[in-house]
Amino acid sequence: MKSLSSLELLSEALRRLPGVGPKSAQRMAYHLLQHDREGAAMIGRAMNNAVEKIKNCISCNTFTENQQCETCLDTERDASKLCVVETPTDQLMIEQTLTYKGLYFVLMGRLSPLDGVGPKDIHLDRLITRATDGVVKEVVLATNFTNEGEATAHYIGETLKARGLGVTRLARGVPVGGELEYVDAGTIARAMLDRRAT
Amino acid sequence: MKSLSSLELLSEALRRLPGVGPKSAQRMAYHLLQHDREGAAMIGRAMNNAVEKIKNCISCNTFTENQQCETCLDTERDASKLCVVETPTDQLMIEQTLTYKGLYFVLMGRLSPLDGVGPKDIHLDRLITRATDGVVKEVVLATNFTNEGEATAHYIGETLKARGLGVTRLARGVPVGGELEYVDAGTIARAMLDRRAT
Ligand SMILES: [Zn+2]
Ligand SMILES: [Zn+2]
Repeated sequence: MKSLSSLELLSEALRRLPGVGPKSAQRMAYHLLQHDREGAAMIGRAMNNAVEKIKNCISCNTFTENQQCETCLDTERDASKLCVVETPTDQLMIEQTLTYKGLYFVLMGRLSPLDGVGPKDIHLDRLITRATDGVVKEVVLATNFTNEGEATAHYIGETLKARGLGVTRLARGVPVGGELEYVDAGTIARAMLDRRAT
Repeated sequence: MKSLSSLELLSEALRRLPGVGPKSAQRMAYHLLQHDREGAAMIGRAMNNAVEKIKNCISCNTFTENQQCETCLDTERDASKLCVVETPTDQLMIEQTLTYKGLYFVLMGRLSPLDGVGPKDIHLDRLITRATDGVVKEVVLATNFTNEGEATAHYIGETLKARGLGVTRLARGVPVGGELEYVDAGTIARAMLDRRAT
């Protein structure tokens, strides 16, 4: 068998990007090599650097280059509140509303039995440990208002309530079926202020 | 100004991929770092390796890791024929038909004045030098049958005919297996005008 050329290796590798099939992987490789070698070099460097440096925060699970992220290290925050989000982007969206000054836990996903994503994949054990530290009093569930996000919120909510924690959910100011990433800050702010016990 | 984090640098770099905006660049970065670090490392390695090793063939302009590509080095090929294609993929498509045993020139693009792509960008000077080597007798224009591809073929054809070369173009017509009922009128019109004795 002939070994793969550097070009074939690059096309194969680019298929690891989500949503990129063989045709677009090849088109990307051709484009970079023909028209943007500087961009190709940037991607190569940034990728290797990220793999080497980026870890998950030991407290909130978001991406960080240190043991703990800046948010978790911020002593001005109200450590009695823990907001559970699906992704770092969702956390950013909430931060922009300036309606919440507590801490976070980032699931890095959502429960999705059909895709084989279970409690372990959203780090539920770590969330339980984090939420039952004796300091956290209220857990704000801010997963998306999609079917999977709602199911995830329900599952986490039941689990934490069974351990005596106060659990709230963003109010349904967020449109049903909507994803936080695409909702305007005002709507998210309203939902945060209207959060209620579940 | 705060310097960019490794994660931000990665998202920025991924935007150099064609068709990738800020949202999808971020989604790609998150996905790789959370769920496919091996894939991320593969992309980093493959990208750096490709930038270092891949050049353009000095004869036909396609991608190669040597001075000349395997096709150009193949002495079994008919050096009197030179087929002009837009991309390495187009060359591969023609190779698969087993109907052509000559050599190639890969433009790595097509004329597109609106996008600022002129004769220099499709390496016309090199094509002229290549086609007028005294050995090439026929230049087969196999650019796409899009408006830009047709304009490119026309421009190259006129340029090379002015230098005394024989220039042909792939035939247009009804696709093999095509039913007239489902073929557009323009294609049928072309096929009618180009009809030939059987
Ligand atoms: Zn953290
Ligand atoms: Zn070549």
